[in-house]
Parts: sequence; structure tokens; C-alpha cells
Amino acid sequence: MAVWLDKASDDFEARFAAFLTTKREVSEDVNAVVKTIIDDVRTRGDAALADYSRKFDGLDFALTPMRVTTEEIDAAEAEVSPEVLDALRLAATRIEKHHARQMPKDDIYEDAIGVGLGSRWTAIDAVGLYVPGGTASYPSSVLMNAVPARVAGVPRVVMVVPALAGAINPTVLAAAKIAGVNEIYRIGGAQAVAALAYGTESIAPVAKIVGPGNAYVAAAKRQVFGTVGIDMIAGPSEVLVIADADNNPDWLAADLLAQAEHDRGAQSILITDSVELAKAVEAAVERQLKTLSRSETATASWKDFGAIIIVPDLAASVPLANRIAAEHLELAVADPDALMAGIRNAGAIFIGRHTPEVIGDYVGGSNHVLPTARSARFSSGLSVLDFVKRTSILRLGAEQLKQLAPAAIALAKSEGLDAHARSVAIRLNLES
Amino acid sequence: MAVWLDKASDDFEARFAAFLTTKREVSEDVNAVVKTIIDDVRTRGDAALADYSRKFDGLDFALTPMRVTTEEIDAAEAEVSPEVLDALRLAATRIEKHHARQMPKDDIYEDAIGVGLGSRWTAIDAVGLYVPGGTASYPSSVLMNAVPARVAGVPRVVMVVPALAGAINPTVLAAAKIAGVNEIYRIGGAQAVAALAYGTESIAPVAKIVGPGNAYVAAAKRQVFGTVGIDMIAGPSEVLVIADADNNPDWLAADLLAQAEHDRGAQSILITDSVELAKAVEAAVERQLKTLSRSETATASWKDFGAIIIVPDLAASVPLANRIAAEHLELAVADPDALMAGIRNAGAIFIGRHTPEVIGDYVGGSNHVLPTARSARFSSGLSVLDFVKRTSILRLGAEQLKQLAPAAIALAKSEGLDAHARSVAIRLNLES
Repeated sequence: MAVWLDKASDDFEARFAAFLTTKREVSEDVNAVVKTIIDDVRTRGDAALADYSRKFDGLDFALTPMRVTTEEIDAAEAEVSPEVLDALRLAATRIEKHHARQMPKDDIYEDAIGVGLGSRWTAIDAVGLYVPGGTASYPSSVLMNAVPARVAGVPRVVMVVPALAGAINPTVLAAAKIAGVNEIYRIGGAQAVAALAYGTESIAPVAKIVGPGNAYVAAAKRQVFGTVGIDMIAGPSEVLVIADADNNPDWLAADLLAQAEHDRGAQSILITDSVELAKAVEAAVERQLKTLSRSETATASWKDFGAIIIVPDLAASVPLANRIAAEHLELAVADPDALMAGIRNAGAIFIGRHTPEVIGDYVGGSNHVLPTARSARFSSGLSVLDFVKRTSILRLGAEQLKQLAPAAIALAKSEGLDAHARSVAIRLNLES
Repeated sequence: MAVWLDKASDDFEARFAAFLTTKREVSEDVNAVVKTIIDDVRTRGDAALADYSRKFDGLDFALTPMRVTTEEIDAAEAEVSPEVLDALRLAATRIEKHHARQMPKDDIYEDAIGVGLGSRWTAIDAVGLYVPGGTASYPSSVLMNAVPARVAGVPRVVMVVPALAGAINPTVLAAAKIAGVNEIYRIGGAQAVAALAYGTESIAPVAKIVGPGNAYVAAAKRQVFGTVGIDMIAGPSEVLVIADADNNPDWLAADLLAQAEHDRGAQSILITDSVELAKAVEAAVERQLKTLSRSETATASWKDFGAIIIVPDLAASVPLANRIAAEHLELAVADPDALMAGIRNAGAIFIGRHTPEVIGDYVGGSNHVLPTARSARFSSGLSVLDFVKRTSILRLGAEQLKQLAPAAIALAKSEGLDAHARSVAIRLNLES
């Protein structure tokens, strides 16, 4: 069902180029509606939130208050099985340990002529985390977004989650508690993004908003960008598996389907030098599709966007992988390091036959928020760096100013900026 | 002329809050026009570029080819005074040395149970640098954008610059040569951004676009974001000077005006505990304004957006500075370190009386591309980090997979993702 491409065929380059540019999302234009909602929340605050929640979520804040209480969170946690709670705690601990290594260090130093230079890092004051409702409400994503914020030292992490008729997935609340989220509000959509960005009577504004959402949430994030920071706008997920002949086709089929089941727009790609393996994997995919609860989604994804690419040798997979720039790249080969050395563009690499991408989704410790849709060419997965900012430092004494002044004045004058030149010259009693 | 605010007055909080939210830019809605131009360049490539350049820049590519030749660049360099060339070289060297320290290091390690984890950094393959035409065509900005890209190891740096009737500021071309820019095209506006993002017959696409521009360029960057990466959308510049009584008012006035002369929307703010100093600075600003070539711009900026804030003591300036989150913060006080310890939000800090912000614009070594309009609350100035991306690494053996599998399977099942659970379970011959 997936498309087959053969590197050795004459039309490969044309077909591969077309494959790379295939759109996997319908981008709904909801900008006008979203703008109206944002303006309304800015003007009317809590009252606007109450109206939208009544309309979209069937929720009456007079009966079910907007803010989720500590008692509710504790009650939700008690509903979750001990097995899942333990798994969440293991995941949180591993995520925390790994992300702690990402904390950047200040670097303040003096150069050869005595100029003080440097970078100082500070945590963002307050971060908002959007968590979708319904089937896309993933507890693992709560951990992946909130734990790095806490590791960065963000003092206030605020979660918003739409609650159809008031109900929130209890595992999501348990994950929020484990991750140390400070405030939770049962609001969603563009109105929740507006409340986080501009604040209302009940919700203090944050400085940055992260987390996935539907077209309305994505459009709202784009619109408030500048007033607050935002993370990447996530698109549908993808995996690229590079495999040699010596693989269990069932394992690889399961990995391909683990992406495909996410979304009809997800993409699963196999590159191999073995036509036999490719055929066996394709057959295994067909077999396994029959027993998945999300078979319809996975079938659509595999049929519309799945691909099997045959290469003459594994080395030929590297330039293709760099052009695909996959969110997830599995190297199921005997010598993964040889391939890895050449890989420049990938959100995350899963090395060897015993590292299914799914481990990274949950308990590997690395972050599962990764660049999709070829954006690994220019961006990185979520990390502690997304929750800190750098202040640049410069310190001169009279002597250093004297040394650097002539060049600064020359450049300022060449740019026609008199006051710039004067600001330096005046300190040295020079004419400018 | 500037507004005066007194921390001790009853209406201070209301007036300060209003001051913080004052818009300093008229945002033109040029989205529709920009979309048409981008679509046209995607469809017709070089032919569209030729048409727009004829229309907007009065330029005929048949007579003046789109690509700037090495001979032209060398000729431009010969036109620039030795003094300015030396200043550019000093600036480039200092920028390079400082930014080399920002290069992040790979971190690949094994955790306690033998899971391999890590981060690997690679340079972006190709970066586009937009340089505005006319009076906003600053050679120093060419260095500030291109040098960090080269330090990061970006193999291909492409510059676009509009050229009215073919002419490009020779100092801009000299700066591009010094910074090691690989290709220069005389195109500008939304069409140049489209060409960089999607490529044409003559211009290979890049993966990220940086650099300032007008409303059309900014809108185009927003629209191509996702297809390529972009840097921040820069707004008008601002400076906050915190000063004690013991300052030369003329020095501070020059610093305030060095921001004000940039743009009518620029903002200059003085916070001091000395009313006498404030009055003296204001008088000095009035005097100095008379002798500036860009007096009209600086006068408008100072009148519309300038501010003098009186605080009872210098410690009271710190929370205000954090709310202002200035692009540039000067600490012209006897003990700058005491204040600096409390500053969380600032693009760059200039320490002490001998560090005018202008040194950072040109030859300090730090970057002058900094977060404007309060965005220092959530973002950082340009650095080497903007030209690299991080690939996350995960490596498990059979033993590690066995240890982590139960938690991963439990979480996958709790999220209703069967294929996820299977992808782990199948490797251990477990049911899922």
C-alpha cells in the first residue's frame, strides 16, 4: 500500500523530490475566528472565558470552577492505577536527570585587552502549557513539557486543558502533579492561549506558551507570538527506519505503525538495501494493521504517506535521510555508528535494533517533542534551553573604551549615526 | 519632552503599566500582498524576481545580473576607506572570538543502567541573510548575522540586499566579504525571502533566514516560517539607563539619543534616584538634539516614547527593569554588580560608566541583534545557537530495553496507543 521508490531507477530523483514536498496537513484558515476570540478575551477577561467554555465545552464555571483544585488533582491521582503512576514517576525521573545536563552555564570572562564579556542565563518567569483534550490528551506530553521547565528553574508553570463537561483525563492531572505544575485551568482553544498571553482577572499572564494543539490553538499561538514566546508549531509525526537485511520484519512493522497510528497525516518510511526485507516488512504491516484499535488511522497514514525506499547500499541512505530530516530516525543496522557519522538532519536518532522509537516517547529520558515536517533541518527538539534566556554582558573600563573607541566611531559615522559616534567620543573628550 | 514618572506618586503603578503596553509600531497588514508575491516566486522563479526588481528597484537583470560578482565585491571594498575597513576587521575578529565560546558541545553519555543518551549539534546546511536597502543598510548588522553563522560552521551563507537601480552600499559588500558570505544577490522585499525559502533556477533554497527588514520582509518571514527557520521579528530598538547622581549628564544624554536616532519608534528610558541628574540629562538631551543629523527622528522618539523614572533608591529600579525587559540596559552606577544580581530580563547589560551601549553595537564582540519590545522576558539575542541544531540520541541494548519496557508499555496502553505498546513488547516476546 505504501509507495515504493528505488534509488536505482531513472525517475528516482523526480519521485523522491515530489515525495519530500508532499503536504500531509490541510491547513485550515481559522485566523479571523481566532483573532475575534483573542480580542474578546483581552477585553472581557474571565467573562469571555466563561462564555466560550459554556459554548464549546458545555461547562458552567459557576458549578465547576475554572481552576482545578488540589483536592481534584489528588482525587484524580487516586483513580490512576499504581502501575501507570509508577511508570509516570520513572519517566519523570529519567526526563529530569537527562534534562539537568542541558542546563547552560554562565560564561563571564575578560578578553586579552581587559574587556569583560559574557553570557548569563536566567529562567523564564512563567510558562503556560497547553494540553489538548480528548484522545490527544497525552500524560507523557505533560511530563515532556513541564519537567524541562521545572529543571530550568521556571518558578510558575501553568497548565490549561479543555474539559468536556468538566472532565479531565485523570492521568493527565496525575502527570501534572508529578511534574510540579503550579496552576491548572480547565480551559482550551484559542481562548486559553489568549488568557495565558494577556492574562485575565483570575489568570496572571505567562511569558511563553508551549504544547501541542489543534488548528485553532496553533493559529492563536502564532497570533500571540511576540507578546509571549511560543515553542514550535508541531505538525504530524514521522519516523524513518533505516534497516539492513538482518532485522525481524515484525519489529520494524510495529515501529512503522507506532507512528502511523498517531494521525492520518503521520508518515512512516523504511529505507533498506534488501528488497526481501522490504517485502517482509510490508507484509507484516498488513498483518499487524488488522489487530490495532486505531487501525483506521494507521491504515490511512500508511496508504497515503508511507514509503519504502530501496537503496543499492546503506551508505546511500545517508544523503536521503538528511533530505528527509525526519523527526525520528531509527538505525536498525549492524554498524549504526558508521551511518550516524554522516547524519546531519534528524530530530532524534534511535540507535540499534533494541531502541524502538517508542522508548523515547515515554521513558528514555530524552524529550519526545521534536521537529516535524523536515524542520530538523533548522530546529531542535524541546529542551531546557527553551525555558531559559541569555543576557549578554559587556564591561569596559576607561582604558578599554579608549582602545575600542576609534573603530566604534568610524563605523558609527560610516552608518550616518551621529549620536552613536558622540556617545563614545564624548567620554574621551573627542570631537565627533 | 519625555514623560516623567515618579515611583513615589500614587498613580505610578497605573501610569507605569500603561507605559509598558504602549505600542511603538504601526503594524501594517501586508499579508495578502506578500502571499501573492511568495506564490508568484514559487511558480515563476527567476522570472518573477526579474519582474519585481524591475518594478520596485528599477533594475534590469539583463544589464545588471542578479548575482553580485567577486569583481564587484572587490571593487566595492576598494571604495571603502582604510579606517572603516580596519574597523570592520576589528569588529569581525572580536565578534568571531566571542561567539566561538558559544559553540555548544556534544554530550553523549551512558546512564546508570547503561542507556546511551545524548545531544549532538550540527550546523544548519544553508542560511539566508536579509540586508535592508537604503539608510537601514548597516554593515555592522552584516557582521553580527554572518559571523556567528560562519563560527557555527554553516557551509553556505547567502545574502540578499535590494539595490535601487543596481547600487549597493559598498561598505555592506566589504562587510560581507570580511564575514565570509558565499553568495550575494541584489534582490529584496518579500520576493527575496520567497527565493531564499523555496529557491529559484539561480538560487538554491536555504534552511533558515535571518536579518531585519520592513513590514513586507517581516510578513514574508512569518509566512515562510515552517518551510524554513527564521530569527526573531525585530521591533524598534530601546535602551534603559539606570544611573545614580554621580554621572556626567552629557554622557547619558548621548546614550539615550543613540537609541532615539535609530527610529521614531525607538525608546530611551532613564531611571535614577536623583531628580537633579534627571533634570540635567533632560536639558542635555535638548541641547544635543539640535546638532544631530537625524534630529527629527530622535526628537520624535524622545517626545513620543522617552521616559524619565524617579525612584526613591536604586534598588527600586530592579523590579521596574525586569518588567521593562529592555533590549539594552546600561548600569551607570557606582556598584553595578549589586543591581545586576537582581536583573532577570534584559537583552544585554552594559556595565559601568565607561560602557556605552554603542560599543556593543560595533566592536564589543557581543551580538547587537537583541530581543526588543519586552521579548527579553522569553528570548535571547542572536548567537551561535541560532545556526546549529541538536539531534537527540538514544541507544538501548536488549538488557536496557527489558528494564524500561514495562513502564513504556503501561504508558502506551494508558494512552490507547496499541502499536506503541506492541513495538516494545514484540522485541521481548511479550503479549501486548
